[in-house]
Amino acid sequence: MASEKEVSNGVEWRIKIADGSSERLVPESNPASRLLLGLKNFVVGLALKVWKFLQKAWDLGVDDPRKVIHCLKVGTALAVVSIFYYMRPLYKGFGENAIWAIMTVVVVFENCVGATLSKSLNRVCGTFLAGFLALGVHFVASQSGQRFEPIIVGASVFLLASAATFSRFIPSVKARFDYGAMIFILTFSLVSVSGYRENELFKMAHHRISTIIIGTSLCNIISMLICPIWAGQELYTLTTRNMDKLATSLDGCVEEYFKDSGSVVESNKECHKKFQGYKCVLISKAAEESMANFARWEPGHGPFNFRHPWQQYLKIGSALRSCAYCLEALNGCISSENQAPEYIKKHLNNSSLKVSSNSSSVIRELAVTIKTMKKSSNIHSLVGEMNFAAQELQNDLKSLPKLFNPPSMPEADTPENKKIEPISRTMVKIPLMEFVPLVTLASLLNEIATRIKGIVDAVEELENLAAFKHASNDKC
Amino acid sequence: MASEKEVSNGVEWRIKIADGSSERLVPESNPASRLLLGLKNFVVGLALKVWKFLQKAWDLGVDDPRKVIHCLKVGTALAVVSIFYYMRPLYKGFGENAIWAIMTVVVVFENCVGATLSKSLNRVCGTFLAGFLALGVHFVASQSGQRFEPIIVGASVFLLASAATFSRFIPSVKARFDYGAMIFILTFSLVSVSGYRENELFKMAHHRISTIIIGTSLCNIISMLICPIWAGQELYTLTTRNMDKLATSLDGCVEEYFKDSGSVVESNKECHKKFQGYKCVLISKAAEESMANFARWEPGHGPFNFRHPWQQYLKIGSALRSCAYCLEALNGCISSENQAPEYIKKHLNNSSLKVSSNSSSVIRELAVTIKTMKKSSNIHSLVGEMNFAAQELQNDLKSLPKLFNPPSMPEADTPENKKIEPISRTMVKIPLMEFVPLVTLASLLNEIATRIKGIVDAVEELENLAAFKHASNDKC
Repeated sequence: MASEKEVSNGVEWRIKIADGSSERLVPESNPASRLLLGLKNFVVGLALKVWKFLQKAWDLGVDDPRKVIHCLKVGTALAVVSIFYYMRPLYKGFGENAIWAIMTVVVVFENCVGATLSKSLNRVCGTFLAGFLALGVHFVASQSGQRFEPIIVGASVFLLASAATFSRFIPSVKARFDYGAMIFILTFSLVSVSGYRENELFKMAHHRISTIIIGTSLCNIISMLICPIWAGQELYTLTTRNMDKLATSLDGCVEEYFKDSGSVVESNKECHKKFQGYKCVLISKAAEESMANFARWEPGHGPFNFRHPWQQYLKIGSALRSCAYCLEALNGCISSENQAPEYIKKHLNNSSLKVSSNSSSVIRELAVTIKTMKKSSNIHSLVGEMNFAAQELQNDLKSLPKLFNPPSMPEADTPENKKIEPISRTMVKIPLMEFVPLVTLASLLNEIATRIKGIVDAVEELENLAAFKHASNDKC
Repeated sequence: MASEKEVSNGVEWRIKIADGSSERLVPESNPASRLLLGLKNFVVGLALKVWKFLQKAWDLGVDDPRKVIHCLKVGTALAVVSIFYYMRPLYKGFGENAIWAIMTVVVVFENCVGATLSKSLNRVCGTFLAGFLALGVHFVASQSGQRFEPIIVGASVFLLASAATFSRFIPSVKARFDYGAMIFILTFSLVSVSGYRENELFKMAHHRISTIIIGTSLCNIISMLICPIWAGQELYTLTTRNMDKLATSLDGCVEEYFKDSGSVVESNKECHKKFQGYKCVLISKAAEESMANFARWEPGHGPFNFRHPWQQYLKIGSALRSCAYCLEALNGCISSENQAPEYIKKHLNNSSLKVSSNSSSVIRELAVTIKTMKKSSNIHSLVGEMNFAAQELQNDLKSLPKLFNPPSMPEADTPENKKIEPISRTMVKIPLMEFVPLVTLASLLNEIATRIKGIVDAVEELENLAAFKHASNDKC
C-alpha cells in the first residue's frame, strides 16, 4: 500500500520483489519519470512565481490605489483615441498620421501631472523646432541641386543629431529638456529624410503637429481632471513625511537606548525595525529631485502657486539628510557592543532624552509649518529649548566624573587621611571606556541639534520665498 | 565733450543749458532710449548666458571625451540609416515603415552598451509580444461580427494598456522591462486599431519588426564596436574610485584634524574642499543601481563574464555608504566649535592616525583586489592591523585620565600628605568636556573600522561569486 501511495504521487516508482519487499527504482533509470518530475517542478515553480508576482502586484495596488487609477486613466485615454480613430474624424483628417496621436498618448502619459505636462511641452516644442529646421534645411538642399541635396540632408542630420545628443549630457538640459532633445532628433531625422521622398512635407508637418497636440491635450486633460497626482503635492508630502520619520526615529532610537538595558540586544533589534524611518530620508534624494523637476511645470494647485519655490524643498531635503547621516552613525554607535553601564546611563538619561525629544519637537514643528503653510509662532522658543537641553546635556557630561565617588565606593565619607586611597584608585581606574558610548551619544546628539538648525534655516527660507502667513495665534 | 561721450554710450542723454553746464535727461523721459537700453541688456545677457552654456558644454566635452564620441556615434548611426533609406533598399522593401528604423535608432541608442542592449531587447520583445497578441485579438474580433468588432478591440486596448501600465509600477518590472512595457502598449494599440483599417496586417507587422531589428542591430553594432562604454566597466570603475575617495577622505580628515590646531578654521576649510570625496560615495546610489541594471544585459567584456555578479557591487556600494555616513558625522564633529586642547590631542594623535591610515589601507587594498580581480594575500593581516590599531586607540583613551596629573600640575611628586589636594582637584575639575571631541572621534573611528569589516565581507563575497584568483605572491 505504501508503495502504491508513493506511486500515486507520481514522483517515485517501486518494484515488488518476490520476497514481498519493494525496491525503489532510482530516478535516473527512468527518463520519462524524470522528465515528468522536472516538468511538474517547473510548472509548480512557475505557478508559485506567478502567484507571488500577482500577490505583490495586488499589494502594490491596495497600498496605493492611485496607481490603479492612473492605469485606468491611461487605458481610458488610449480607448478614447482609439474610438476617435475608429469613428473616422481623426483618420479622415490626418490619414496615416493619426497613429501619432496614439503614440503621443502612450509616450507622454505619466503618473503625475508635472511629468505629463513636461513631456507634452517637450514633445510639442521639440517637434515644432525640429520641423521648422528640417523644412529650412530641406529648402536649402532643394535649391542646391540634385547632387548636393543628399549630402546636405545627411550632413545636417549628422550634425544636429550629434549636437542634440550632446546637449542631453548637460545637467540643466537633461533635467528639463531631455525628452525634448530626443524628440527634436527624431522629428528632424524623419522630416528631413522622408522630405526627400514626398513633396507633401508641409501637409505632413501640419498633420504631425496637429495629432501630437490632440494627443497631448487629451493626456493633460485626463491627467489633471481625473484624480490628478501633482508632483508638487507629492514632493511636499514626501518632505513632511520624511520630517516626521526623522523625528520619530530620533526619539525612538534614543528612548530605546535608555529604556531597558537588560534586553539591549532585543530592544535594539526592535528599535532597528521600528525606527528605521530615517533610512527613507537617506534614500529619497533622487525621488525629490525628479519631483522638483516635474513640479516646476505644474500650474497652481491646492495651496501652491505656479511659481512655488520647489527647489527650496531640495535644500530642506538635503538638510534633513545631513541630520539622518548623524542619526545613522548614532544608531551604529548605540548598537555597538561597547555598552555603558547602567548607573552612567541613568546619569545622562534625562538630559539625553530631553535633547532628543526637543530636537524632534523642532523637526515636527517645522513639519507642521510646512503642512499648514503658516509661519510657526513658537519655533524660536522650541529651538531655544533644544539649545538649552543640549547645554544641559553638556553640563551633565561635565559632572559625570563626580559619579565615581559615591556609587562604586560608599565609604566616601571616611576621615580625611583615608580618602587618599579611594580617590587615587578612581584616578587610575577611571573607567573612561564606560563613558565612551555615552559621550559619543551626547556628542552626536549635539551635532544633530546643530544640523537641525540647518533645517530651521532652510524652512525659514521657504517661508519667505513662498510668503507663508503668520499663524493666527501669533503675537508678533 | 564729456556729455558727448556719454551720449555715444547710448545709455544716457544730457542737455546743454545756457550757463554751460549740462543736465542729465532722466531715462524715463525717453522711451526709445529705454527700449534700446533694455534691448541691449537683454542681448548682452542672452549672449553671456549662451556663452556660459557653451563654455560649460565645452568643459563637459573636454572632461569626458567619450561623451563627444557617443554623440558622433549617434550621428553616424542616424546618417547610416538615412543613407540606407535614401539608397532605396529600405524604402523599397518596407515603404513608409522604414521610418521605424530611424525611430528605433533615435530611441534605442544610449550612452552605454548595456542600456542600448536592454532597450533593444525590450523593444524587439515588446513589439513581438504585442504584435502577436494584437493579431490574435484582431482575429477573434473579426470572427465576432461587425457589431462586436470595435467593442472587442476597444476593450482589449483598455484592459491590456491598463495592465501593462500597472506592471510598470512593480519595482522588478520597472528596473528591467519598463521600456518593453511601454513598447508593448504602443504596438498593441497601433496594431489593433490600425488593423481595423487595413487588411495588410501581417505585412505591416513583418515590416515593423524587420525595420526595428535592422535599427537595433545597427545601434548595437556601433555601440559595441566603436569605443564601447560598458555599464559594467563603469560600475566597476565607479566602485573602485569611490573606495579610493573614501580612503583619501578618511586619511585626509583625520590628518587635517591633528595637523595644525593653530589654524583649525582655515585647515578645516581646506579639508572641506580637499577631502569631500566621500560625498561622492553618499550620492552614487542611483548611478550604481542603474548601471548594475544595465550591466546584466551586457555580454562578457574585458575581464568580466556574461554572468558577472554585478548585484554584488551594489552591496559593496551600500557598505561604502554606511562608512561614508560615519565619516560625514565625523567631519561634522571635527569641524564643530568644541575643540580639544592641544595636549590631549597629542596624546591620541598617533593612535588615531594609525587607525585612520590602517583603515584606509584596508579600503585601498580592497580597491586593489577589485581592480586586479585577484584575491589579496594580505587583507587579513591588514584587517588585523586595523583592529589592533583600534584597540590601541581604546587603550590610549583609557590612559587619557592619567594625563591630568603631570601636565597641569608639575608638583605631582610632592610628599604623600600634600598629594590629596591636586588629586581631588583633578577629580572635580576633570575636564571631560575637553575629551568630548576626541572621544567622539575615537568612537566614530572605531565605528568606521567596524563598518569597514562590512566592506571586507562584501568584497570577499564578490571574490567568491566572481571566482577571483589568488594573487601570484600568495602563499596560501
